[in-house]
Amino acid sequence: MRETATTFATLRLPTAFPASRKKYTTGSRPDLQVPYREITLSPTHHSRGVEENAPLPVYDCSGPFSDPDCIVDLSEGLPRLRSNWIEERGDTEGLQGPSSEYGRQRANDLLTRELRFPAVPRPRRALPGRNVTQMHYARKGIVTPEMEFVALRESMRLAELRSDPRYAALLREHPGHSFGAKIPDQITPEFVRDEVAAGRAIIPANINHPELEPMIIGRNFKVKINGNIGNSAVASSLAEEVDKMVWGIHWGADTIMDLSTGKHIHETREWILRNAPVPIGTVPIYQALEKVGGLAEELSWELMRDTLIEQAEQGVDYFTLHAGVRLPWIPLTAKRLTGIVSRGGSIMAKWCLAHHEENFLYTHFDEICEIMKAYDVSFSLGDGLRPGSIYDANDEAQFAELRTLGELTAKAWKNEVQVMIEGPGHVPMQLIETNMTEELRHCFEAPFYTLGPLVTDIAPGYDHITSAIGAAQIGWYGTAMLCYVTPKEHLGLPDKEDVRTGIVTYRIAAHAADLAKGWPGAQLHDNALSKARFEFRWEDQFNLSLDPERAREYHDATLPHENAKTAHFCSMCGPKFCSMKITQEIRDTFGSDVTEAMAEKAREFRESKGEVYR
Amino acid sequence: MRETATTFATLRLPTAFPASRKKYTTGSRPDLQVPYREITLSPTHHSRGVEENAPLPVYDCSGPFSDPDCIVDLSEGLPRLRSNWIEERGDTEGLQGPSSEYGRQRANDLLTRELRFPAVPRPRRALPGRNVTQMHYARKGIVTPEMEFVALRESMRLAELRSDPRYAALLREHPGHSFGAKIPDQITPEFVRDEVAAGRAIIPANINHPELEPMIIGRNFKVKINGNIGNSAVASSLAEEVDKMVWGIHWGADTIMDLSTGKHIHETREWILRNAPVPIGTVPIYQALEKVGGLAEELSWELMRDTLIEQAEQGVDYFTLHAGVRLPWIPLTAKRLTGIVSRGGSIMAKWCLAHHEENFLYTHFDEICEIMKAYDVSFSLGDGLRPGSIYDANDEAQFAELRTLGELTAKAWKNEVQVMIEGPGHVPMQLIETNMTEELRHCFEAPFYTLGPLVTDIAPGYDHITSAIGAAQIGWYGTAMLCYVTPKEHLGLPDKEDVRTGIVTYRIAAHAADLAKGWPGAQLHDNALSKARFEFRWEDQFNLSLDPERAREYHDATLPHENAKTAHFCSMCGPKFCSMKITQEIRDTFGSDVTEAMAEKAREFRESKGEVYR
Repeated sequence: MRETATTFATLRLPTAFPASRKKYTTGSRPDLQVPYREITLSPTHHSRGVEENAPLPVYDCSGPFSDPDCIVDLSEGLPRLRSNWIEERGDTEGLQGPSSEYGRQRANDLLTRELRFPAVPRPRRALPGRNVTQMHYARKGIVTPEMEFVALRESMRLAELRSDPRYAALLREHPGHSFGAKIPDQITPEFVRDEVAAGRAIIPANINHPELEPMIIGRNFKVKINGNIGNSAVASSLAEEVDKMVWGIHWGADTIMDLSTGKHIHETREWILRNAPVPIGTVPIYQALEKVGGLAEELSWELMRDTLIEQAEQGVDYFTLHAGVRLPWIPLTAKRLTGIVSRGGSIMAKWCLAHHEENFLYTHFDEICEIMKAYDVSFSLGDGLRPGSIYDANDEAQFAELRTLGELTAKAWKNEVQVMIEGPGHVPMQLIETNMTEELRHCFEAPFYTLGPLVTDIAPGYDHITSAIGAAQIGWYGTAMLCYVTPKEHLGLPDKEDVRTGIVTYRIAAHAADLAKGWPGAQLHDNALSKARFEFRWEDQFNLSLDPERAREYHDATLPHENAKTAHFCSMCGPKFCSMKITQEIRDTFGSDVTEAMAEKAREFRESKGEVYR
Repeated sequence: MRETATTFATLRLPTAFPASRKKYTTGSRPDLQVPYREITLSPTHHSRGVEENAPLPVYDCSGPFSDPDCIVDLSEGLPRLRSNWIEERGDTEGLQGPSSEYGRQRANDLLTRELRFPAVPRPRRALPGRNVTQMHYARKGIVTPEMEFVALRESMRLAELRSDPRYAALLREHPGHSFGAKIPDQITPEFVRDEVAAGRAIIPANINHPELEPMIIGRNFKVKINGNIGNSAVASSLAEEVDKMVWGIHWGADTIMDLSTGKHIHETREWILRNAPVPIGTVPIYQALEKVGGLAEELSWELMRDTLIEQAEQGVDYFTLHAGVRLPWIPLTAKRLTGIVSRGGSIMAKWCLAHHEENFLYTHFDEICEIMKAYDVSFSLGDGLRPGSIYDANDEAQFAELRTLGELTAKAWKNEVQVMIEGPGHVPMQLIETNMTEELRHCFEAPFYTLGPLVTDIAPGYDHITSAIGAAQIGWYGTAMLCYVTPKEHLGLPDKEDVRTGIVTYRIAAHAADLAKGWPGAQLHDNALSKARFEFRWEDQFNLSLDPERAREYHDATLPHENAKTAHFCSMCGPKFCSMKITQEIRDTFGSDVTEAMAEKAREFRESKGEVYR
């Protein structure tokens, strides 16, 4: 087992991306500041003069860490930008302290005092009988600041860009094929409200997580990605997990799941939440199991209930709950090649079998809804029976559970609690689309949130790739959020470098899906990068990349000299063989007039039915 | 620019994969020995006893390098296994020496003597008026040893495995969705002959490349991958290229393209061919351009002709020729964002414009066919106007050229010359399928051979991934061979490690496509690995991986101790949280009888319309 020496003092946090500026769009009120990143580009030098290249705005999940005007002290946590919004609504109360038994116990624990986040905020809860979910407001017709925030964030200044002539040429894009998604040309706050009210999208935003910059997960919005972090009993320290979270959002994770299973889960989570500008998800059963010394049969609803309240009061934005692993579905896994591969699913299965009783998360679902709506925690209904191999894909166990998740979705919506549905896993390409259509059908278009899926099992060590292939496809078909997979999947615990690789890989899959669905403005980024490439603006090409550092490093591996960054070729082909250089020479030598003349001749040619003209 | 010190003396060539044995299936004649790799597995220890795991045979392109009984001396080259087959046909003659002017000149060149392969074989050529292509034989109804070889190679002992009870459970697989491909349940020599005769598949096999282990490229066969190597003026030595080729086939490249553009192209190619058990492709215009000092306008048909003969007599198996870059199509690229990005395409375009004449490869196509059929070189009709960005995908220039390639395919087939068609490039997901359907339509089902396609432009440094997403899809839709892309694409020249990453990534894409198409037996490999994973047979899991070394390295990064390889958990979840362990505990505790009993209860439950049973 690895010893790590990472402490908060030794962390090297990310700063802004190169040539990038943190900017904000102001909403209808001054405290509604929606972040984006603007990449500055250098001008193009034509033979006929210099042409400016307008800066490119990109979606930004990195939070205040990338804002040079905001100095983050991890031990103080991030600014609480939503505090006023929450208080103004007047439907919540501040508590004196944690209302969970475990939370109280932990607050007074002497042994962990040193590890504790210094100024743990007092929790907040809905007033008795009130519902504080975004879905509740949406159904009442209220557009919350959170909804306006995500509307501005999703539309990414597109209306402005469209009216700016500098962007005209680069805004041309291919029509998408959306598989039934209904993406409007412009995202408005009212559209957001409507989608949340219908359950087609969620805004995971616990009232105890005011540091959050709201984001939305739904089929009619940009495809999102989740990065998992979390120590296990075997490896990784507390500071290391915070570090992974901050780097994860730097590379582009829209949400982070803290899957810690070792000691100090409670303390780790507090540090993460207080410093997280993105929604944090957890799997509460992991902690419940820790509390009973790892013996699944010792679990109980009472213990689970206390754990849910404990985590809700810390500010967790969504809970993965394996409430669909019903007793009668467990035998359906008996003939599987790889049984139950979800950790939470197998824990619940073991409990059900040991007691020969129905899953307590299923039988107590209404009580869980009561907790969720008092803090606005969203359900991420876990797929405890997801296939763990190509062999087990799309089997009866999986779809039996999916139908149960649909039944629970209806129940949650009756309680006006937000829901998304988790999906597989391991699925060969020809069976992926069925996963999406079945989910839409049985879960009434609640957002789908899938792990990959991996399209083959034969490449451990490369499962970020086997799964990105499936993720891009299922994202295209309509999945709202893609849970990343790192190269270490099936083999070990990811380190920071694995997190980077996993996140960038999934940004690729999500963006590919946005392009294919025809998300308005998605192609602008591709067009800007391709233009830079064609014009040999190397620095711009690096800076426009999802991972500028990596792009530069690979370029410099063969051509390290500074002047190679202005060269009109690269090491792939060398100066004589560069096709882009030759194309530019053609345009330069023959001029655009000649190209026009050629076009004319070509038209003549085609009209004369294809004889070679001379 | 990088200086490399790699020499043949310092090369460290690959040996066999761990736990693998090189084996051969014998065909209808003793000199027909079809290689495969057999992965030995360890037994499973159940509570009820020990169960043997039968070894897994896998397709193997690594050649004699992985055969411990065959000691390869690079300066002697590989055994010439096809020599007899070629001579027996009695339709060729041995020449005294090269018949190309350049070949003769080079053979007598004093300056390059030191670099030269020691015993350059004498070239062979069809007797006057004879056609020695596999297509010619196929159309005559002749099943050549090459056809029988590929039939055995493709069917991978499947009939045998199917009648062996040890494989029964693991041979279960999902039905595929083949998009119109007609894959038989068993590949026979007659089926191969028929596909080659129809032009739906090619066996690239130059009579001057007797070292070749024949393979087939076609929609109704396993999806293949190509790895590019080649020095440029900027980097990389001769020995380094041979090294990359050998490692490329070790990792799983079905063919290798030598894209060298620097000095000593001729000598590098000879070393590669004499040591290549896989087909070698080239882009002859690169060398032609070297011969005229890089000035495209100085190119001529006479020079090109001499180059084609020079390379055909060395043994090149397929030529990429940009014969579809017709003069009238060039202006169609004027409005593109990234112009012409194919090196060969831009060279031809420059020539056409400079002379204002039709492409000489197009006007001399019949003469080229005469050369191709005298040596059995296959056409790889290049997509010189492929899109170089998402923006330019599926445009008029691209499809105008594709239709021309179709016209040339018909011409080649009239000459009984084998043809495949090259495809893009950069294509967003929603436009990929059209590329396949247009190719099938306009090129009469000739095999499609695509580069990626990359599904987004925004991730330089990760273009093996952006392109693997597209490659898996287009492979599923029917593309017969996928040209790999390495992480260095657009940035620099790949080194050996990049070749490894590129090849393994493309093996993933090709295998995912095979699974999705429903290639018989494809899922066996996935099933064997998943079974090993579920049973915590770590060594087997590593050994069954496409890259055993990488899998082991990642596992050991967190749990380096030897006893962790027999542990019933891994570092991802630790011992208490391992879902697979819990599932096995469930099975162990409750037994398979209980599972049966549970299944019975579950049936009762469903029949009683879903009330929770207790």
